[in-house]
Amino acid sequence: MADFYASGPCRLRPHFKAHKTPEIARRQLAAGSCTGLTCATVSEAEVAADLCGNILIANEPVGAGKADRIAVLARRVDVTIAVDSVEGLEEIAAAARRADARVGVLVDLNVGQNRCGVAPGQGAVRLAGLVAASNGVVFRGVMGYEGHLVGIGDRAEREARTRRAMAELVTTAQMCRDAGLPCDIVSAGGTGTYDISGRVNGITEVQAGSYVLMDSDYGRLDVPFEQAFWVLGTVISRPGATRCVADCGHKAATKDHGYPVVRGVDGAEVIALNDEHATIGVPADSTLRVGDRIYLRPSHTDPTINLHDVIYALEGDRVVDVWPIAARGYAEHRRVR
Amino acid sequence: MADFYASGPCRLRPHFKAHKTPEIARRQLAAGSCTGLTCATVSEAEVAADLCGNILIANEPVGAGKADRIAVLARRVDVTIAVDSVEGLEEIAAAARRADARVGVLVDLNVGQNRCGVAPGQGAVRLAGLVAASNGVVFRGVMGYEGHLVGIGDRAEREARTRRAMAELVTTAQMCRDAGLPCDIVSAGGTGTYDISGRVNGITEVQAGSYVLMDSDYGRLDVPFEQAFWVLGTVISRPGATRCVADCGHKAATKDHGYPVVRGVDGAEVIALNDEHATIGVPADSTLRVGDRIYLRPSHTDPTINLHDVIYALEGDRVVDVWPIAARGYAEHRRVR
Repeated sequence: MADFYASGPCRLRPHFKAHKTPEIARRQLAAGSCTGLTCATVSEAEVAADLCGNILIANEPVGAGKADRIAVLARRVDVTIAVDSVEGLEEIAAAARRADARVGVLVDLNVGQNRCGVAPGQGAVRLAGLVAASNGVVFRGVMGYEGHLVGIGDRAEREARTRRAMAELVTTAQMCRDAGLPCDIVSAGGTGTYDISGRVNGITEVQAGSYVLMDSDYGRLDVPFEQAFWVLGTVISRPGATRCVADCGHKAATKDHGYPVVRGVDGAEVIALNDEHATIGVPADSTLRVGDRIYLRPSHTDPTINLHDVIYALEGDRVVDVWPIAARGYAEHRRVR
Repeated sequence: MADFYASGPCRLRPHFKAHKTPEIARRQLAAGSCTGLTCATVSEAEVAADLCGNILIANEPVGAGKADRIAVLARRVDVTIAVDSVEGLEEIAAAARRADARVGVLVDLNVGQNRCGVAPGQGAVRLAGLVAASNGVVFRGVMGYEGHLVGIGDRAEREARTRRAMAELVTTAQMCRDAGLPCDIVSAGGTGTYDISGRVNGITEVQAGSYVLMDSDYGRLDVPFEQAFWVLGTVISRPGATRCVADCGHKAATKDHGYPVVRGVDGAEVIALNDEHATIGVPADSTLRVGDRIYLRPSHTDPTINLHDVIYALEGDRVVDVWPIAARGYAEHRRVR
């Protein structure tokens, strides 16, 4: 991924939410081509700030003391957040003034995902103008996440729709500039569109995260990244000729993108996933027995990582390190952990 | 729940997996009618052993050093586990002998859930005989979880099918006794069947867990337990007249039993649940705005609790305590936490 962005002008801002693991983020930053790190939560940003001097919270952090925690962070590293409302803007600006800090702001545009974000166009430019006129914050640009497009299996459709979404983002960025508002950051993209959004003229950075570990959902696509993590389980029961049960349920590997996939066991397939149990269908002649280890390929990296406290780093089959998943949860990092 | 079992002869063994929270388990034990605590994982048992002298791991703990950890626990508290294979029996018996400990064993019966467990009948009695003949372990009885029945909405069907499943369990227990194998524990049940299995002659304890916190899935049933926990979120975006977005996605409240339910906001309904975002449909005249707090009723207690590190205990709207969710994860309790 670093190689893809090495020639610029678009750069990579790896999304820390995918793994929440400092040892992985350090390697992503060391590989180069990065503008900084992307985070989804304030807790992630509090951990990421020890790794990198430039943090984007690509989300609207509103309520529950979040703005004050961000303002404190902004006194020691460069922090930018997304805003899509006057209320959100006023909250972060007030917190920044209280902390005597300056927080960067991107106006978040809805480029079709229909989640957060204001509509592209003049309304967005008006909000950008309010940002630029507010003390405590600095208008840095716009962002728009094409999350509804990153998983489209058909390459031509994914590419065409992503280009249309990115055109709206780039056009609004230009409208901001035309209104006298400098727009240095135009941030978008994910693992499924890294080489589409990342080649659209005017996009300055891509927020891809899943590429570094991958999962079976992104594995359907034509992206060149290798699966790098698994959930290790043990067969605890072999109650019938064609069924066995392992100790890794959806408290160990989520099913929000489907069941995890059993690696390297012919014909073995997860057929049910309860809290603590994976029920696995196997051929009648399968040699799987109680005590055997199995590797599950998760269907969705981010929430699966979020279930665990550490990653065991392997070289071949040898554990060479244990990496804390340090940015789990929502509490203030320095107080609770 | 304690009142229901107060008159016996069946007792309650609350399932710690539902909440993993010592402060809740202490209250359940103090309320009375309990034989001990039920756990699903060794990590839970390691925490529960500080709360209670009688622990049942109602699961087959095989592999990854689990048997040795159980044997160490069994030197200071009474620990019983479920077994459904010769391999599982040999593993725990060997670990118990290494630790000079005695571990209780229940033979796990498949009463229709088709997950773990041996078939009721003579095969189960043979396994019970092997347990009784093994050094390091003590045969204590049988268990059979009617997990496929606890959620049936129709009371008459739930009751009829549960009675049939429990009859298989009780019959096999009697076959064990007829074979000279004392069968003191006959363990079954969940929140949806607490007053069915708990009134079947011969069932000695019920492993219900969800009753103490409840969720929207069990809330569909005719059980008399109140919802006691919510996920607190904040509206971070109000991008359209009929839509708002809160900061609590399925990393905060799982969707394996459906979307969580918004409490006390007329017409508000979760319409999408991503990693960090709940998209909520609201009536066009809704006064919900950016910064408002919302309470989500989770659809499934156990995996939702498993996402969090602490519970904030409320009296009315006032936080009166912060309770660690101490038994999350799979690592050895004393080493990692």
